[in-house]
Parts: sequence; structure tokens; C-alpha cells
Amino acid sequence: MRILVTGAAGMIGRKLTARLLKERAIAGRAITSIDLHDVVPFDAPDAGDIAIATHASDLSVPGSAASLIEGRPDIVFHLAGIVSGQAEAEFDLGYSVNLDGTRSLFEAVRSAGHAPRVVYTSSIAVYGGPFPDVIPDDFHTSPLSSYGAQKVMGEALLQDYTRRGFMDGVGLRLPGITVRPGKPNKAASGFFSNIIREPLSGLPAVLPVPRSVVCTHASPRAAVGFLIHAAAIDGAAVGPHRNLALPGAAVTVGEQIEALARVAGNDVVKLIREEHDDTIWAMVQNWPTRFEARRARALDFKAEESFDEIIRAYIEDDLNQ
Amino acid sequence: MRILVTGAAGMIGRKLTARLLKERAIAGRAITSIDLHDVVPFDAPDAGDIAIATHASDLSVPGSAASLIEGRPDIVFHLAGIVSGQAEAEFDLGYSVNLDGTRSLFEAVRSAGHAPRVVYTSSIAVYGGPFPDVIPDDFHTSPLSSYGAQKVMGEALLQDYTRRGFMDGVGLRLPGITVRPGKPNKAASGFFSNIIREPLSGLPAVLPVPRSVVCTHASPRAAVGFLIHAAAIDGAAVGPHRNLALPGAAVTVGEQIEALARVAGNDVVKLIREEHDDTIWAMVQNWPTRFEARRARALDFKAEESFDEIIRAYIEDDLNQ
Repeated sequence: MRILVTGAAGMIGRKLTARLLKERAIAGRAITSIDLHDVVPFDAPDAGDIAIATHASDLSVPGSAASLIEGRPDIVFHLAGIVSGQAEAEFDLGYSVNLDGTRSLFEAVRSAGHAPRVVYTSSIAVYGGPFPDVIPDDFHTSPLSSYGAQKVMGEALLQDYTRRGFMDGVGLRLPGITVRPGKPNKAASGFFSNIIREPLSGLPAVLPVPRSVVCTHASPRAAVGFLIHAAAIDGAAVGPHRNLALPGAAVTVGEQIEALARVAGNDVVKLIREEHDDTIWAMVQNWPTRFEARRARALDFKAEESFDEIIRAYIEDDLNQ
Repeated sequence: MRILVTGAAGMIGRKLTARLLKERAIAGRAITSIDLHDVVPFDAPDAGDIAIATHASDLSVPGSAASLIEGRPDIVFHLAGIVSGQAEAEFDLGYSVNLDGTRSLFEAVRSAGHAPRVVYTSSIAVYGGPFPDVIPDDFHTSPLSSYGAQKVMGEALLQDYTRRGFMDGVGLRLPGITVRPGKPNKAASGFFSNIIREPLSGLPAVLPVPRSVVCTHASPRAAVGFLIHAAAIDGAAVGPHRNLALPGAAVTVGEQIEALARVAGNDVVKLIREEHDDTIWAMVQNWPTRFEARRARALDFKAEESFDEIIRAYIEDDLNQ
């Protein structure tokens, strides 16, 4: 089985690659090759007897997507994209990478003609408020960010290219991915991870919003689990609607902090300082909170059920590595 | 006030132009010029002291949209598009016209920098079944046709370009437009008009689906009314969600036929022959039926409330002309 991963140098891309190299098979079929793509050059991990190669190119440049698909991968994980904040700051770049890059890749898949499984990382940014208490699977995707608009367009392409038989696509609206490893970043959503990761390393962290804010979280480990499950799933069971809201642990920031106290003790929690930020607060109020995710649950997509589990996944996978 | 109409040679485009030339103003502001665009050359109607010009070009070709926007129109009616059946039959053409053409036009508007009102004709084809009895405004747009996918993408662009301040867009999900003047066509939805128009001219018509089929209809006159209302409406009242499901007369085919009997007599109805068509029936079952259209009603978009009115509008506007 041949695998292609775009955006492979990103956090999820690297964790997905590591998991593929550990499991060495998807749905019982042995992995024979992995092509890793990103816009920047990066080093391939050691892969033993799996043929591994890296590719650096801009997918929106004519010919670059076609050369990636030349090897006729059985599964394409399309993770490449400009993140939300950058898509908002750099309008043209966001459309070029998130829309044109995705369309070029899907067109290359169509030209190849072998209709592979394509797993696409969409986002809960496809939703725009106001929201009901729990967002049902058939809630409208009416985004209020350029990133969300680009993801809606990618989802529409994915569904249409699948319906036409050009590929067998599954789109995943990833929830908040927490705890992100690495340094604090300036993403408005960064605090969800910062308030856990930094104190666990003995460092201070700022909480810029009230403790009542609710978000649905899944760990990077669970996100990789979603991707691999989507690669293996029966397309007929997914049906014609190819883009799925996913389950996760829907908790308040207060509950996140209580979980941190349970897992790591009260002294760790004392490293969190509350310092209200109006700009972040204004954005957070437009973010979706809880998802019904009935279809994804029925299709056996699994996430953590508590934030305690999410913290423990971070400690095992990142802090102690 | 300067007006630009794309797709001006089509049925709705011609009726919109006639109405603009009759009213000579929008929201009390006098119309000084009308630029009419289509992909095929066509003749401009007589416009008196309003400067009128026609333009034939492919909007997806670089530069063609920019030249249309050069005159900095105050209102752009973007009606141009490949219809549903053709977008399904000619995949590349559909994306080129309905997606690339729309994006080029919106990019030209963005470059011009004067943020005009853009009224965009979307469609109820953005919805894919299964459906609830009445489709609420926040029902997901998960289309099951290439045309629907392209319209979803146009809607996402419209909303994002509006949010970013590049234009002041309003997207209208037109319901079934009935009664269409002209000859019977092979569109799967053609029978909704055929069974009214043909008998009114003393000609036979075929009904290929059961009388229980429900569809929401508005007359071409009401469709033009929607467009002009959208051109004049306060953008702040529309809010951040810029694409609207519209009201209409939701009736069964049986109720359409009963209305025809009331308006034109039983002998006219006898010209309808029932001849089941499995292909059309299979498609019709995936079409949306009734819409709540709460937002559009609150914004004062008006349609016919009965199918009798729709038939009378056809008799006045087309049959007797």
C-alpha cells in the first residue's frame, strides 16, 4: 500500500508519519511506501524497509501536484494548509494554498484515474455563529473567517469529486487539537494548549478568557487516530455526505484547569495567571462549542472522553519524549 | 447609479433588464447606466436616456472581469452561470464558468476597491438530502450535484469577500422558477413549467413524476423582485451570513394542476398526460421541498403565496405578451 502525506512537516503530519511507521499497515494491508510532502524541505525519518521519500513544492504551482500523484498512492492524507491566523492576515496566500493547492491536488488525483482514498483535514472553522448548545451534523457551514471559507470550498470539492468517482474522499472537521507541543504561539486559540503545556514544564501561562469558555478538544494522538480510521473506513458506510464533524471532549476552560490539578497537582495550576484579552475574547465568542457528531460516532471515530485523558496523552507522547 | 448584469442574455437577465428600464431607479436612486454582459453576443434593448452597453466575454478569461468592473458599477447582478444539467454533463466547463468565472468577477471587484453591492444568484441546489419536512435557514449546504458544489463555493467567496470589506454581497438561493417561458427543455425540472405553460397554449404536456411531489416555486417576476430587493436592502440588516434561502409557494404537483384548473379550466388540464420517468423520479426525490426562509421573510423578500398567482403572473408577463 502506497501512502502520500501532504503537509507532512507539520505537527500532525510528523505524528501521523511516526504512527504509520510504527503500525506499518492500514486496515491489515502492509505499507510499502510513504511519500512525504511539504512546502519546505525537511528530513525523512528512518523507515526501515518502507520506501520513504520527501518532496518540497507548492501544490498550487502547475505540475507539482501531478508529480506527487505519479506513484498512484492508495491513500492520500491531505493535511497541507495555511493556518487560520495566517489565512486571515495573508488573503491571497490563504486562497492560493488552501483552495488552489487543494483543487490542484484533487485535479491531479482525477487525472491519475485510480480513485484513491483521500483524507482531508477540514476544521470546525467551517462553522459560523450564533450556535445552538450542541451543533448537529446538519448545521450549516457558514464560516466567518477566510480559513473557514477555504475549508468549506475544499469540502465541496471533496464531496463532488467523490460523487463523480474521481476519488474516495473523507473530510474531517478537526476539533481543537490540544495539547499542542512546542512553544507558545500567537494563534488566538493557543491558550487552550498553553495553560496546560507551560505549567507542566514549570513555566507560567496566561489565560486570556473567562473560565466559562467551552471548546471541544481532541489530542494530537486522537487526531492521528481520526486520520488513520478515515483511511481505513468503508466509503459506502460514509454515504454521499463526505465531511464529518468529529467527537471530542467538550469542556470549559475551568474544567481543563481542574483536570490539570487532578493530573499534575495544585502547584502546577498556580502557574496560570488570568489576564483578560479583549481581542481574543471577541474571537472566542464566535467559536463553536459542542458537537453532536452523531455520524462520526456511528462510524466509530474515537476521541478522548475526558480532558484528563488529553493531558495524559500529552505527557506520554510529548512531555516525556 | 451604475448597474452591471452578468448573464444578461438569459431568461432572468432579460426580465431583470426590462424591469430596471421600466423602474429607472433602485431604492430611489436614478439608474444612469446599465452594462449587460453575457458569454454570447446579444442585442441591447432600447433604454432611452439610460446609457446601455452589451459585452460578450468569458469571465474566467484573465482581464475580462476587470474590464467589466472598470466603470465601477454601484450594483453588480451576477447571474451568469452554466445550468445544473450542463454542469453535471460538462464537469470542467461547470467549474470554469460557475467557480472560476465567479471568483474572477469577485477578484475584479476587490481590485476596483469601491465595495459595490453584489447580488449573486445561488440556488436551492446547494442543499442535498435527506431533508426535514421544512428546511430551516441553518440547514447544512451539502450538495449532491456539481452545480450545487459550485454554488456553495460561490456563496463562501461572497460571504468572505463581504466580511473582508471587498464588496457588499447578498446571495440568493433561488427556489424553482416557474412558469419558465419558451419551449420545453430537457432539464429534469422542466416538467414543473411544462405542465402549466404547454396546456395554456393548447399543447400537450407530460408529467413524469407522481402528483405528490412537492417543490417551492416562485415566478420569474418574483425572482426579479428578489434581485431588485437584494440590490436595495440594508447590508447591516442582512448581517454576517450573506446567503439567503427565499420564500415561495410550496405546493405538490397535484396542487399545481388544481390551480391550473381554477385559473384556466378543466379542459386545459386534460392536456397533461402522466407518463412516469424513472430517471427524473430518481432525481426529483433528492430535491429539497419546503423552506422556512425565516431570515428572508424578515428582510421583506416577497414571493407569490399561491400557485394560482404564479400562473397569473405567467399569463400576464409572457403568454399575453
